[in-house]
Amino acid sequence: MLVVMHSHATPEQIEQVVAAVRRMNLTPHPMPGATRTAIGITGNVGAVDPRTLEVLPGVLELIRVTKPYKLASREMHADDTFVRLPQTVIGPGTFTLIAGPCSVEDEDLILRTADWLMARGVRLLRAGAFKPRTSPYAFQGLGLEGLAILDRARRRTGIGIVTELMDTDNADAVEQVADVIQIGTRNMQNFSLLKRVSRASKPVLLKRGMSATLEEWLMAAEYVMAGGNYNVVLCERGVRTFSDHSRNTLDLSVIPPVKKLSHLPILVDPSHGTGKRDYVPPMALASLAAGADGLLVEVHPEPDRALSDGAQTLSFEGFERLLESLRRLAEPLRRTLN
Amino acid sequence: MLVVMHSHATPEQIEQVVAAVRRMNLTPHPMPGATRTAIGITGNVGAVDPRTLEVLPGVLELIRVTKPYKLASREMHADDTFVRLPQTVIGPGTFTLIAGPCSVEDEDLILRTADWLMARGVRLLRAGAFKPRTSPYAFQGLGLEGLAILDRARRRTGIGIVTELMDTDNADAVEQVADVIQIGTRNMQNFSLLKRVSRASKPVLLKRGMSATLEEWLMAAEYVMAGGNYNVVLCERGVRTFSDHSRNTLDLSVIPPVKKLSHLPILVDPSHGTGKRDYVPPMALASLAAGADGLLVEVHPEPDRALSDGAQTLSFEGFERLLESLRRLAEPLRRTLN
Amino acid sequence: MLVVMHSHATPEQIEQVVAAVRRMNLTPHPMPGATRTAIGITGNVGAVDPRTLEVLPGVLELIRVTKPYKLASREMHADDTFVRLPQTVIGPGTFTLIAGPCSVEDEDLILRTADWLMARGVRLLRAGAFKPRTSPYAFQGLGLEGLAILDRARRRTGIGIVTELMDTDNADAVEQVADVIQIGTRNMQNFSLLKRVSRASKPVLLKRGMSATLEEWLMAAEYVMAGGNYNVVLCERGVRTFSDHSRNTLDLSVIPPVKKLSHLPILVDPSHGTGKRDYVPPMALASLAAGADGLLVEVHPEPDRALSDGAQTLSFEGFERLLESLRRLAEPLRRTLN
Amino acid sequence: MLVVMHSHATPEQIEQVVAAVRRMNLTPHPMPGATRTAIGITGNVGAVDPRTLEVLPGVLELIRVTKPYKLASREMHADDTFVRLPQTVIGPGTFTLIAGPCSVEDEDLILRTADWLMARGVRLLRAGAFKPRTSPYAFQGLGLEGLAILDRARRRTGIGIVTELMDTDNADAVEQVADVIQIGTRNMQNFSLLKRVSRASKPVLLKRGMSATLEEWLMAAEYVMAGGNYNVVLCERGVRTFSDHSRNTLDLSVIPPVKKLSHLPILVDPSHGTGKRDYVPPMALASLAAGADGLLVEVHPEPDRALSDGAQTLSFEGFERLLESLRRLAEPLRRTLN
Repeated sequence: MLVVMHSHATPEQIEQVVAAVRRMNLTPHPMPGATRTAIGITGNVGAVDPRTLEVLPGVLELIRVTKPYKLASREMHADDTFVRLPQTVIGPGTFTLIAGPCSVEDEDLILRTADWLMARGVRLLRAGAFKPRTSPYAFQGLGLEGLAILDRARRRTGIGIVTELMDTDNADAVEQVADVIQIGTRNMQNFSLLKRVSRASKPVLLKRGMSATLEEWLMAAEYVMAGGNYNVVLCERGVRTFSDHSRNTLDLSVIPPVKKLSHLPILVDPSHGTGKRDYVPPMALASLAAGADGLLVEVHPEPDRALSDGAQTLSFEGFERLLESLRRLAEPLRRTLN
Repeated sequence: MLVVMHSHATPEQIEQVVAAVRRMNLTPHPMPGATRTAIGITGNVGAVDPRTLEVLPGVLELIRVTKPYKLASREMHADDTFVRLPQTVIGPGTFTLIAGPCSVEDEDLILRTADWLMARGVRLLRAGAFKPRTSPYAFQGLGLEGLAILDRARRRTGIGIVTELMDTDNADAVEQVADVIQIGTRNMQNFSLLKRVSRASKPVLLKRGMSATLEEWLMAAEYVMAGGNYNVVLCERGVRTFSDHSRNTLDLSVIPPVKKLSHLPILVDPSHGTGKRDYVPPMALASLAAGADGLLVEVHPEPDRALSDGAQTLSFEGFERLLESLRRLAEPLRRTLN
Repeated sequence: MLVVMHSHATPEQIEQVVAAVRRMNLTPHPMPGATRTAIGITGNVGAVDPRTLEVLPGVLELIRVTKPYKLASREMHADDTFVRLPQTVIGPGTFTLIAGPCSVEDEDLILRTADWLMARGVRLLRAGAFKPRTSPYAFQGLGLEGLAILDRARRRTGIGIVTELMDTDNADAVEQVADVIQIGTRNMQNFSLLKRVSRASKPVLLKRGMSATLEEWLMAAEYVMAGGNYNVVLCERGVRTFSDHSRNTLDLSVIPPVKKLSHLPILVDPSHGTGKRDYVPPMALASLAAGADGLLVEVHPEPDRALSDGAQTLSFEGFERLLESLRRLAEPLRRTLN
Repeated sequence: MLVVMHSHATPEQIEQVVAAVRRMNLTPHPMPGATRTAIGITGNVGAVDPRTLEVLPGVLELIRVTKPYKLASREMHADDTFVRLPQTVIGPGTFTLIAGPCSVEDEDLILRTADWLMARGVRLLRAGAFKPRTSPYAFQGLGLEGLAILDRARRRTGIGIVTELMDTDNADAVEQVADVIQIGTRNMQNFSLLKRVSRASKPVLLKRGMSATLEEWLMAAEYVMAGGNYNVVLCERGVRTFSDHSRNTLDLSVIPPVKKLSHLPILVDPSHGTGKRDYVPPMALASLAAGADGLLVEVHPEPDRALSDGAQTLSFEGFERLLESLRRLAEPLRRTLN
C-alpha cells in the first residue's frame, strides 16, 4: 500500500501518517520526492481498509497494491485448475461445450435435447429449473419438478447437468441433481449464497456480474474457495455498458487477464452475451480463438416456441453447424472439443 | 408493441408476421409506409417475449411500447405513496433523514448514536447487523447479536431501525427488529429475497442495483408489491460507470423520472454514492434540491475508527453542520425535515 | 510512481527494474515486503510513460502517483480562478446564468431572447452559429451569418455572447464575436482546436467529453492553459452510461472533486444533461446546491418550434419560474445570481 | 416513428398529435389498444426531431423506427464494399494487416519496419506523424517532417501508408502522402474534419469513438459518404466502460451487427483495445474468428524504447509469431491474409 501526501503536506502531517501506520503493526517507508512525499507500507495489509488513512490531514491519495484475492490467484497457485466431472474435465487444452434450453419446459424437451447432444459428443446439459426473471409476471421455471426432470434425464442418458441455484432454500435439492451448480449473474455478489455453495460437494459455475470488475469476480470466487470448494469455473456472459447493438457487451478481452491473474478455467456464454441468435456463432468462434476453456450455449429444438430467451437460442441445425465450425477451428489451436 | 419490417420484406413475410400475431390472440395493425411496413400490435402484450417475433424472416426490429411494471407505475396509481412508520412518514413534503454507522459494532456505539440522533430530531437509525462485503476476509457484521443490539436501542430510545436483510434464512429475525427492511444494491435482483419481503409486515427500502436501469429497478419494486407489500421506498446510491473521481456515480438525475413514472418515495445515499466524507454534504443538499424525499447517511462518533466505510462516514460534528444546511435549504423548497 | 513486483520475482529482476529507473534519471526506492517487493520512484516522472516499465520481467503492476496536470491543479494554484468578462464574473460566490436557444435561427429570435434575458438580469446569451449534429442531413447552423446576428445582438443589447467553435478555420471569426468561446463535448479532445484557443484572447468554456474522466477533462483544460489562456470555465453536461432514463447521465458528483482538485470554475448544463424540459429545473436547483458556479440553459420563446433540441428547451415562462426558484435557493446558500 | 400515448390521454390529446403529424406532411395511423393508443407515423420522417412530438400533452413516449443512416446501410446497398488500394484490397474474404509503430520517430525506424513488413507480405504501414496525446507535455509527433519520412518509405519500399489526420489545416499534406487517411477515436464526431475527408481522394479509416453507439459510428461514416467519399473502413478499438482489467473494453461483439447493418469493411485494433502487449495476440485471433476484415497492430523493433505506447506494442518476433497463428487460423475460416 502507498500513501501519497499533498505537495504542501507538513512534516508533522507526514509523521502523523507514519505513526498511524505503526499503530496498525505495519512498516512505513517514507520516500521524500521532488514535489511530494509518498509513504510505502509493508506487512500484512490485507485487513486494512485503505480509506481509513485517506482522511488523515495532508494525505492526497491512498493506493492499494496487494491483490485482495489469494486462493483464486495464480501468484498463490501457479498451475491451472482442472475441474473434473463424472462426464468430462473442464480446463486448458480442451474446449467444453455446455448446451441446452434456457429453461426446463417439460420432460420431453429435456430428454430429446439430452439424447441429441450426447449423440454429438456434448456431455453437459444446461437448463434452468429456477429462473431469475426481471418481471414477477414472467414464467419463473418449474422449480423442484424441473429438477426431477433433469435428474431423470441424467440417469437415462448419462449427460451431466448444469443448473442454476437461486437461493439457499433450494441448495440441497440442486446440489443433489446438479453436476455443476450455476450461480447466475444477478447473484454473483449474493454472499449468503456463495457461502452456501462454498460448502457444496459439487463444482460451481460462477457467472460474472453485470457490472463486476475482474477483481470483484475473482473475490466472489474467493468466497467459494475460502469455504473449501476449490472447483470454481468462471463464465463471462456480457457486461452492461452504453452499447445498445446487442443485449450486453460480451467482454472477450477479459479472457487473457483471467488466465494471467488466476488459475481457474473460464467459459463464455455467447447466448446471453449477444441476445441474438445470429451473433452467437461468430462470438463462439471468437471465444475459442481468444483462449476460453469452453462455452455455455442455448439450444432448443424449436427456439421460436421456447418459453424464454427464444431469440438468442440456436436450433439443432444451427448448433450442428456451429459444432462443425468449432471443430475446424480447434485443430490449428491444438484444442479438443469435449 | 411494434414490428418493423425490412424495407425489402416480401408481402408473404408481412403476412406471416400478421398470422403469428393473431396466433398469440393479439391484434395486428399493418402500416405500409414510404420505405417499409410496420405492424402495430394491440391487446395484452405483457406476457409476450418481444424477441420471439424478431427472428421471423423479414423482421428488422421489434419495439416494446407498454411499460412492464404496473403496481409501481404512476399511470396505474396517480397519487403519491406515503410510507407510514411508527416514528415518522416517508413521502413528498417532508425530507426524512436516516442516519447511523455502517455496521453495528457494539452496543455502546449504537445507543450513543441513537440518543444523539433522537436529540436532534432524527428518528430513524441505519446500521447493518449483516454486512455484504466484497472480501470473505473482511468483517461480516455481528449477525443476530447485532440485531439484538438494535432491538434494545429501539426499546430504550424509541428510534426506528433500518437494517439490511441479506438472505431468507434471517428474514424472520430481521423482520421482527426492523422498522424498515433494507435490500442492498447487490441483492436488487435477488428475486427469492424480493419474494420473501413481499410477504413481510414491514416496509422495504430497495436500493438501486449497481447497473440497474430505472425500469429494472421499478420491476424489482414490482416484485415486492406483487406479493402484497405496497410499502416500498426506493434509494439511489450511485451506479457504476467509467468515472473514477468518486466511488460510484451518484445519479441524482434519476429523481425526476422516478417521480414522473412512479408514485413511490425515493431517498438518496450520498455516503455510498460518493465514497468520500467531504463530498457527502454537497450531494446531500443537491438531493434535497433535486426533489428526493430524504437521505440515508453514514454517521459515526469516531469515523476514523469505524470497522467499515470510515472514509465516507460523517462525524457527529460534520452531521450537525449538514443538518443545519439542510434546514436552511428546506425552507425555500417548502419541505420539512423529519 | 510505484513499481509492484510479482511475489516470486527474482532479486535479478528487481535489480533490473532498479537499473532501468536509474537510466531514466530517476531515483528508485526498493521496499521489500512480507510477500513482495515494491519500488517507489521519485524525481520528475511526468514525462515517463508508466507502461514502459510494466513489461519488464517480474513486474506485476505500475502505479502512477503524480497528477499529470499542473496549471489546472489546485495544488499548484490554491486560489479560486475568477473569469472576468465585460458583463459579469464567473467564479465562487456568484451563480452565473448563461441562457438562450440551441441555435441561432434568425435575428428576430436572438434579439427578442437577448432583450428578454437582459430585462431579467441574465447577461450572457448562449446560441450556436455552428452546430455539431450527429446526422449530416440535420440543420447545421447558420454559420458566419449566425455570428453576424450574434454580433448585432451584442451591440444592441449589451448581452455577452457564448458560442461554439468547431474548427480552426472559423476561429478568428468566432473569437471576434464571442465573449466566451465554447468547446463542445465532442471536441474536448480535439487537441488542434484546444491549441488554437489556447492562443485566443477570449475565455474558453470547456464542456466535458461524453466519456471523459475528471483527469482527462483537466488535461484538456491544461492544453488551453499551457498555451497561455488561463481563463477556462469547465462545464458538466452529462456523461454516457448504461442509464436510459435521460439523454445523458448528469454527473453532479463531479462538482466537489473539481473544486478540490482544481481552482477553475465549473458550470452545469442541465438541458443537454437530461434531454427533457421537465427535468431541467430540479437538476438546475441541484447544481446550485451542489456548489456549481452557474448554469448553461436552453431557453426559446417557442420551444416546440425550435430547429434543434426543442424537447429539452425551456419556454420563457418556464425559465422565469426557474429563475425565481434559483433566487430563493441562492439566499440560504449565500450565493448571488448574476 | 411511433407516438405512444398515456393510458389516460384524452381523445382531444390524441387528435392534437394526429394534427401535428399532418402538419409535418406525414401520415398518422392511430391504433387504439386495450390500455392505450399508439399512433404510427409513415412518410419521410428522417428530418423530424423525434423529441418535438414528445412534449405534446398526453404523449408518453416517442419511438423512432427508421435508421437515420442511408449510404452506410446494407438495406440501401446490399453488396459488401471492397476498398481498393494500390497495394491491396480491404473487404470480406481476405484479412488485411496494417502494422507499424505508434508514431514516426525517425526515418531509420520507418524504413526498417517497412522493409521487414513487406518481406512478410504485409503491405500497409501504420505510423502517426500527428499524435493526439492526452497531455500537452507529451511527444506530439514529428508533424510534416514525419509525413515526409512516410512518403520516402512509400517510394522506396512500395508499402502503403495509413496515417492519422487531426485537423483540416494538415488535410492536403496528409492526403498527398497517405494511402488511407485515419480519423482517430477522439475525432469520430469532429464533423468539420469528417466533411473535409468526405472530399478527399483517399479512403478513410474511421475509428470508433470511445463511447460511440453503433448508430453514431455509422452516422459518422455517413458524413464521409454523404460528401462523396464512399471508401470508408471502420475500425473497432475498444470502448470505455467500468472495466479496468484492460485499457479499453474491446467490443468484438460489434462485428456481427456491423456486418448485418452495413456493407462497409471493419478492422480491429487490439493494441489500443487492450493496452497490453500480452493480450494482443489472443484478441487478434478472436477478431479473425469473429469475422473482422483485418487488423491494425502496433509493431516496433524495440517496443521498450518506443516514444509512445510501448507497452501495447509487439516486437518483430512477437508479430512474426502472431502472423503464423493468424495464417493457421485463416485456413479453416477460408480467409486469406494480405
